Amino acid sequence: MQNEKDKLANSVVAHMMEHDAFSQWMQVKVLEVSEGYSRINMLIRKEMVNGLGIVHGGITFSLADSAFAFACNNRNNLSVALDVTISFTKAVIIGDTITAEAKEIHNGRSTGVYLITILNQKNEQVALFKGTCFRTGKKLV
Amino acid sequence: MQNEKDKLANSVVAHMMEHDAFSQWMQVKVLEVSEGYSRINMLIRKEMVNGLGIVHGGITFSLADSAFAFACNNRNNLSVALDVTISFTKAVIIGDTITAEAKEIHNGRSTGVYLITILNQKNEQVALFKGTCFRTGKKLV
Amino acid sequence: MQNEKDKLANSVVAHMMEHDAFSQWMQVKVLEVSEGYSRINMLIRKEMVNGLGIVHGGITFSLADSAFAFACNNRNNLSVALDVTISFTKAVIIGDTITAEAKEIHNGRSTGVYLITILNQKNEQVALFKGTCFRTGKKLV
Amino acid sequence: MQNEKDKLANSVVAHMMEHDAFSQWMQVKVLEVSEGYSRINMLIRKEMVNGLGIVHGGITFSLADSAFAFACNNRNNLSVALDVTISFTKAVIIGDTITAEAKEIHNGRSTGVYLITILNQKNEQVALFKGTCFRTGKKLV
Repeated sequence: MQNEKDKLANSVVAHMMEHDAFSQWMQVKVLEVSEGYSRINMLIRKEMVNGLGIVHGGITFSLADSAFAFACNNRNNLSVALDVTISFTKAVIIGDTITAEAKEIHNGRSTGVYLITILNQKNEQVALFKGTCFRTGKKLV
Repeated sequence: MQNEKDKLANSVVAHMMEHDAFSQWMQVKVLEVSEGYSRINMLIRKEMVNGLGIVHGGITFSLADSAFAFACNNRNNLSVALDVTISFTKAVIIGDTITAEAKEIHNGRSTGVYLITILNQKNEQVALFKGTCFRTGKKLV
Repeated sequence: MQNEKDKLANSVVAHMMEHDAFSQWMQVKVLEVSEGYSRINMLIRKEMVNGLGIVHGGITFSLADSAFAFACNNRNNLSVALDVTISFTKAVIIGDTITAEAKEIHNGRSTGVYLITILNQKNEQVALFKGTCFRTGKKLV
Repeated sequence: MQNEKDKLANSVVAHMMEHDAFSQWMQVKVLEVSEGYSRINMLIRKEMVNGLGIVHGGITFSLADSAFAFACNNRNNLSVALDVTISFTKAVIIGDTITAEAKEIHNGRSTGVYLITILNQKNEQVALFKGTCFRTGKKLV
């Protein structure tokens, strides 16, 4: 059974996902949401590759960035990305399903830090993403 | 008049762009390429926004990542992204045209470092991207 | 009982620590070493503060950087830092003891990625460090 | 002739440097300060090397971090580092003099972004540092 905080978290993410045109284009699926946490995935399609025939780095980043946004905004405190770093550790190809899991490292009053792990369908890590957000104090819903 | 190195740089980027399905989806325009350098832009469309009504961070990242790839591969030495960091400094909205300019900071034998500045149509900086690549020694064309 | 890989890891780190003048100045203590892993700590002294009266960011970074070096070099494959990012989440003050634990995220042939968590004596996270190294293939001992 | 803003910037940095025990240990010299800008240098001594016989990464980081602090605080708005990334491009050795120049990329109300270039005495780039700070609104002097 979800507690009140996790219910709010799920409502906020449902609202975000409904308006998030780019996550919709990526066909992101929301797998699990709780306070300060999210886990999402998507299938890599042929529109997502770069000039080297592997997935465009921006696609892997984008999935992780959506997971980051869903985790850092879900207390209904509108938060925007300040700084993000990503390390790419394994190539992703068409047909892979990649999953991004966002965990909260620090929940400050004005800022927050999140670590997002991106795995492929074999549970191999393909990238590691660290994001810092700024909390505006505004509500989303 | 282009020298031989810049001619090669332009050939490599033309080849990459031709196969880069995601940069094509973004409707990236290649404005200028020379050895270790690239400048590209695109128009922000409604498919590119996130759940907060501003451009998805992954879109801004992706433009910069394409500029990075076009700059770091254009000596015809296939190079893949290892680590990237991006700082977001201003929101981007539908209808903006954003331009990413990639400059080479370090051209090592095995690695390279590039700094990519992303501006909007008013020449306001919207993000700053730093990327490190690994050089495989393989050719692209 | 240590296996052979962990024995080698401990020998390499003992050799590194013996020659690491700056870690000696910081009075770093090596708490635990195993293959691809290290945990070290130190006491914050008055020589380590900055102009705001809190610990200089470079000190926290340096402890984490030593943990990173001890973890990424300890297979006796000389590895140098390429890219590092650090997020500061809590101020550190004189008299604190901070501990850095380095875990291996990716052990590639040419590169490696490590995540280093820095805690104070109350087990509060003060910083999170992600480092990518380049493996030279040379030996240390 | 300095304008009022640059006079303030120099006063703030003089105050910071006077209390910055670690920058004093490093024997940092302040070369130039103006609003949102600083340039400083230091000589690499034998106490600053790591277990590989080259300068400890934390030392190069620390010089850049001091330059960052002197640039981002010098409007007398106390600012603390949130996120920093550094790319190392060339080894630094004993006897080198390294100079860090901090330029302001973004001066926001709550945050700021700075790019710090670190050169050796031959004007070779040894590292590139990007830092984001949070502005507290408190005064330093």
